[in-house]
Amino acid sequence: MSVPAEAPAGPAVGVDVGGTHVKAGLVDAHGRVTSEAHRRTPARTAAAAVVEGLVVEVVRELLKQVPPGVRARVPVGVGAAGFVDADRGRVVFAPHLSWRDEPLRDTLEARLGRPVVLDNDAHAAAWAEHRFGAGQGESHLVVLTLGTGIGGAILTHGRLQRGRHGLAGEFGHQQLVPGGLPCECGNQGCWEQYASGRALTRLAREALRVGGPAGAGLRAAGPGDDLSGVTGEHVWRAARDGDPTSRRILAEVGRWLGTGLAGVVGSLDPGTVVVGGGVSGAGDLLLDPARETLAGTLVGRGHRPVPPVLAARLGPRAGVVGAADLARRRDPASSPSTAGDR
Amino acid sequence: MSVPAEAPAGPAVGVDVGGTHVKAGLVDAHGRVTSEAHRRTPARTAAAAVVEGLVVEVVRELLKQVPPGVRARVPVGVGAAGFVDADRGRVVFAPHLSWRDEPLRDTLEARLGRPVVLDNDAHAAAWAEHRFGAGQGESHLVVLTLGTGIGGAILTHGRLQRGRHGLAGEFGHQQLVPGGLPCECGNQGCWEQYASGRALTRLAREALRVGGPAGAGLRAAGPGDDLSGVTGEHVWRAARDGDPTSRRILAEVGRWLGTGLAGVVGSLDPGTVVVGGGVSGAGDLLLDPARETLAGTLVGRGHRPVPPVLAARLGPRAGVVGAADLARRRDPASSPSTAGDR
Repeated sequence: MSVPAEAPAGPAVGVDVGGTHVKAGLVDAHGRVTSEAHRRTPARTAAAAVVEGLVVEVVRELLKQVPPGVRARVPVGVGAAGFVDADRGRVVFAPHLSWRDEPLRDTLEARLGRPVVLDNDAHAAAWAEHRFGAGQGESHLVVLTLGTGIGGAILTHGRLQRGRHGLAGEFGHQQLVPGGLPCECGNQGCWEQYASGRALTRLAREALRVGGPAGAGLRAAGPGDDLSGVTGEHVWRAARDGDPTSRRILAEVGRWLGTGLAGVVGSLDPGTVVVGGGVSGAGDLLLDPARETLAGTLVGRGHRPVPPVLAARLGPRAGVVGAADLARRRDPASSPSTAGDR
Repeated sequence: MSVPAEAPAGPAVGVDVGGTHVKAGLVDAHGRVTSEAHRRTPARTAAAAVVEGLVVEVVRELLKQVPPGVRARVPVGVGAAGFVDADRGRVVFAPHLSWRDEPLRDTLEARLGRPVVLDNDAHAAAWAEHRFGAGQGESHLVVLTLGTGIGGAILTHGRLQRGRHGLAGEFGHQQLVPGGLPCECGNQGCWEQYASGRALTRLAREALRVGGPAGAGLRAAGPGDDLSGVTGEHVWRAARDGDPTSRRILAEVGRWLGTGLAGVVGSLDPGTVVVGGGVSGAGDLLLDPARETLAGTLVGRGHRPVPPVLAARLGPRAGVVGAADLARRRDPASSPSTAGDR
């Protein structure tokens, strides 16, 4: 397995397929997005082919902007929200889309007439942070993506660790509270119920429901008394303006983040933890309590370094940038296990 | 980093340094222990040099049994209970011994006049199970060592993953119960308080304390009414003889084992899980409830394979066998991160 010392310098297309949007970008060798294209993802009941069609559309739209002489050599990388078997190029299961063991890579390669690299969206985003963002230069990295839930990725020795079936990094469903809050996965008390965007909105709704002065700052930040309209962003905007309720909510979610992180760091011993995804927009109001809890509960504390917990730097484009860079590199050594491995 | 396709065929010495014993063996290239030597470890207050002296003693004792012509080439591997920086050859912290940032490898090399490989004892045991035991042929492996606590190791692509500082695999201190049982690490509700030898003895003592028919089977298995004398072995012996209380205890500990495993498997996606250590002597009475809980709670169940959970095969010699094999191979690619990695 030879690793190219330098990836090719030309542009690549990265596509990020989520539950609500297909985002794509033309990405240069420095991780800069020079052009973008978007589509809304149809309802989860839509046929698999509909989403595939949207991916083909955005890729073609971006390829038109590449000089004809280079166009044929532009690689395409796709990061998809779901269980992705990167090695076999299949989406095994996508909770927010209708893909079930879908041979997406082969389908896209046939329709686009070029090689396509397929990976999980959280893996792609983590790769981008490792290459161009907050995890640059760190060979042992854990990246958490805090959105509605908690996604994640593990890098060791500078390579994505995908596990036996490409499913590694699903940190969000560790049980932290026996008999706790019900989770979409069918269990109760999963970490992501306490330390994700879902936790922020749940706590914000509770504060608004109580009414009175506790919810005043939140109401002023946007949602009014609309319980269903409150978002994580309302919470951290109000927190930045000094609202004590919103600060308490971020601190509570941050402490849960740190509690789960102590388990992850104890298990994996990364040199750095990067926290990305929409919720990481809350910044240090969320991350400081997480850092404090991690430092105060990590096994062996006092006899070992506590890894820094850094905010991701690439924002919502991380998935696009990472997918493009994975495609540009096509590093066989960062693929998941192959049959020969076993 | 070149990996020797075949390790040298000669014997190697493996040493397993625990809180109570120094165990050593002469191990052939097939993982067979051809000769053994033991010492009791002195109290944890004993000077570091005392334990080092015991290691030197057992190694010399075993080397005498090797033909003089071969003796100079016999490598030595040491697995030590504690935080080991394998790359720098140091025991960073050993909770049951007086080592604190101790340059054990260099000290032993100087005293023994030959190269010494130093690693964590759970890593050494896991390596043995991968090479010669229940994890043979599996490149993506998680090995749990259930003793008083829970130790562990991660192999991906057939290599030990030690993390940034050599401390990966400390699974036992994930919080599973907020405000739960106090743990030696200073936290509460750690996994190892619910799914280790300590959990077995705690539940057995409770049953004996209650008295009456519930504790009858356990009392008959050995400890009588001696609460302080009850061990995990009493529990599984009584369970095998059909004692319902002991079976209930093993099932409860097994379910906690499965609950934590669901988090580990979700995070790492191993192809196989191997459970070793003293407590694994309980066999399927412990492992079946763990398997059931894992299969019933793993994220994405129904859309992914659930890895088999196998009992370790090498028993209490795993640490000795693994340390010897790591020394024989001295595979630089399975060392922890080096400075150049970063």
